[in-house]
Amino acid sequence: MAGAYDEMWEKLNLDLTAHEGLLQVLGKFYGDIYLSQENRLKGMEYMDFVLSEVHGLRIKEIQDAKANGKKIIGTFCVYVPEELVLAADCVQIGLCAGAEVGMESAERLVPRNTCDLIKSFVGFKLSRLCPYLESSDLVVGETTCDGKKKAYEAFAEYAPMYIMEIPQTKSDAAKALWRAEVRRFKARLEELTGKTITADDITRGIDIVNGKRKALQRLSALRAADPAPISGRDALLINQISFYDDPIRFTTQINTLCDELEARVAAGEGVAPKGTKRVLLSGCPMAVPNWKLPFVVESSGAVIVGEESCIGERNTRDLTPDAAGGVEAMLDAIADRYMKIDCACFTPNAERPGNILELANRLNADGVIQYTLLFCQPYANEAMKMEPILTNKGIPSLTLETGYSMEDIGQLKTRVEAFVETLE
Amino acid sequence: MAGAYDEMWEKLNLDLTAHEGLLQVLGKFYGDIYLSQENRLKGMEYMDFVLSEVHGLRIKEIQDAKANGKKIIGTFCVYVPEELVLAADCVQIGLCAGAEVGMESAERLVPRNTCDLIKSFVGFKLSRLCPYLESSDLVVGETTCDGKKKAYEAFAEYAPMYIMEIPQTKSDAAKALWRAEVRRFKARLEELTGKTITADDITRGIDIVNGKRKALQRLSALRAADPAPISGRDALLINQISFYDDPIRFTTQINTLCDELEARVAAGEGVAPKGTKRVLLSGCPMAVPNWKLPFVVESSGAVIVGEESCIGERNTRDLTPDAAGGVEAMLDAIADRYMKIDCACFTPNAERPGNILELANRLNADGVIQYTLLFCQPYANEAMKMEPILTNKGIPSLTLETGYSMEDIGQLKTRVEAFVETLE
Ligand code: SF4
Ligand code: SF4
Ligand code: SF4
Ligand code: SF4
Repeated sequence: MAGAYDEMWEKLNLDLTAHEGLLQVLGKFYGDIYLSQENRLKGMEYMDFVLSEVHGLRIKEIQDAKANGKKIIGTFCVYVPEELVLAADCVQIGLCAGAEVGMESAERLVPRNTCDLIKSFVGFKLSRLCPYLESSDLVVGETTCDGKKKAYEAFAEYAPMYIMEIPQTKSDAAKALWRAEVRRFKARLEELTGKTITADDITRGIDIVNGKRKALQRLSALRAADPAPISGRDALLINQISFYDDPIRFTTQINTLCDELEARVAAGEGVAPKGTKRVLLSGCPMAVPNWKLPFVVESSGAVIVGEESCIGERNTRDLTPDAAGGVEAMLDAIADRYMKIDCACFTPNAERPGNILELANRLNADGVIQYTLLFCQPYANEAMKMEPILTNKGIPSLTLETGYSMEDIGQLKTRVEAFVETLE
Repeated sequence: MAGAYDEMWEKLNLDLTAHEGLLQVLGKFYGDIYLSQENRLKGMEYMDFVLSEVHGLRIKEIQDAKANGKKIIGTFCVYVPEELVLAADCVQIGLCAGAEVGMESAERLVPRNTCDLIKSFVGFKLSRLCPYLESSDLVVGETTCDGKKKAYEAFAEYAPMYIMEIPQTKSDAAKALWRAEVRRFKARLEELTGKTITADDITRGIDIVNGKRKALQRLSALRAADPAPISGRDALLINQISFYDDPIRFTTQINTLCDELEARVAAGEGVAPKGTKRVLLSGCPMAVPNWKLPFVVESSGAVIVGEESCIGERNTRDLTPDAAGGVEAMLDAIADRYMKIDCACFTPNAERPGNILELANRLNADGVIQYTLLFCQPYANEAMKMEPILTNKGIPSLTLETGYSMEDIGQLKTRVEAFVETLE
């Protein structure tokens, strides 16, 4: 993969030697975890290609877009309204990072007791390894967890940060704050692009993002079938790619893949035998290439049927209503759609338990694995709260706290295997 | 101390045996850390008495107040407007806890990776050891750090919680949210007490709280003198007691103590020889009886001259202006006063570096010890940010991360002694 893009990477000021090493490790990792799977869908060839070109062709496209005057907006949270980014004719890229990269240098900027997702994006920056970050004209942070909101302050010395205030409750006053923040963001995008966002622009943004969400909802619905028509690893990868691929092309590809899935389901075929134990993953987002736990679960005799996370259901559950009535009404509709997201950073996060139960039920899950990144206090607290709720509903659950290091993989496997054996 | 209050404690449903043990440990600890000091101020006799009666006479007073129809409001954060609590004729009590009590049972409710301050208040509750908590008619939480805001959700099953939303930035929209929250709190107090809060009530509340703050400001100003007229331990204790003593009586006592301090300063007398190295503590609050680090510092050849923390300067720095113009204007004045607090939970927390430098300068500190409770992400992040700022100003600093356990006291002492030796 190297060679063809070296000049581009050099222009982006990447650390070429370290970057080459990263791509090699990633390629090997992907081979072991993904390409080794059996009964893979033909539609996954596109994903394999996109991933193999994650720092290549897609970055080239982004550079071309920049050359044509488009701005690149990097984000770390599903609260950033992509509808507006697209309405402003910008490209949105999710920057959350799932690799154990630059962790030591990250600890010069953020405390040791910070979750690996944060350390990873800080590490990528300090090690000059992420071409998406280097391509971003604006990096949008948000006031969600303590770890992120404080890390952004330090990060602002290295990247062009803009912070959206996300409230901590869903009271009327909090919603008013958020509606104001959505408007401030629109103004910032207009300032960045020199373009006035019209109602037609927003309609186009809503259509594209809703289209992507509908395709991913369709994928999710098909996973209710037994045998499971797609592996959890592949479904997670699709959700991960949804954060950085071109949204229109991606949507077309997913719909084609869903056609293939439908045929599979109709034929009673799948990636694992009928009756294989079905697990719902729930909790912290798994950013690309964080495939550790899915790999552990699916090599322990179970199949993953859903991801209750921001790289999964939390990002795709709600569509934005097609508001008539002009820009202001549309902005309110967008703001209100995002306020439905059941992130653990809210207090109380009243909708989440019901959403988890509904999902486990709809996907015919036999059990739930609650996943928390070490040092993530919001999700660790909610995992403790969910345990008795799941137990009361007769749904077995296991809570796992881990980071990006591979050191505990044997221990995780032992625990997951024991859990899968208890499922009925 | 036991015996006389047994019946009262039993009525409060305390665990009498464990409580007796707690009081004995506390008494011994206090003797070692406080009563052993030389050149103590006569005015500290009152504090010794208050502390010896911390679960006795003061609780008796609170029970009597309750019998007379007063409501007791427990709090965990200096953001809760005491002016309104007093205006509603209620008693406000700070519930932050500084003892290693019930930590194991706390970990059934909150994650392991939670700061000890939180674990301690949860532990006190689950172990039935805090008569203040048991006396509270309303317990006010706030959306500050992740640890607290999520812990309150679980805690709400054990205590009558009410949550105030504190925004995370100081934008105009955030300030509007906070002004609305102050009004919602006033309405809640009125509902609880059946009393309508008038402008006169608020004036009285402002006067009492400002009086307390002015007395503590006077104390702080006197600590600029060399030799230091009061130990850091005693000053911290005074600030800790300010959270639960009767505010009017307390203010009188502090002013008397300040008279004594003034005479000392005039006579050039102090608790340590002139020229003793002077340290400013900065960071997380030290709740009673968390005297661990002050003891370590002051037994390492230094004297503490200030506490840049919420149990210290952050709570007393700003007075509430005497707003004319009726209730609404007064509520805005109160809200705006609280918005000045430079808590690390805000992003950015722009005022804090300047406030720390100003304080170090005003108190003639030779160095700053930044104190973070283990797993406190907001203050750990800010400590990393402050280090180079202090270095640039030529102020030596040391960052210490620790919890309530005494296990690391030898290690802390080694580091503090080495730091004190470097001070000039
Ligand atoms: S988990 Fe919360 S903070 Fe993280 S991406 Fe999702 S909504 Fe944002
Ligand atoms: S995993 Fe948790 S701590 Fe990490 S960025 Fe997300 S919400 Fe914050
Ligand atoms: S440190 Fe912040 S959260 Fe804690 S008491 Fe102070 S203002 Fe409140
Ligand atoms: S010390 Fe830090 S983590 Fe603990 S309650 Fe205070 S702000 Fe929260």
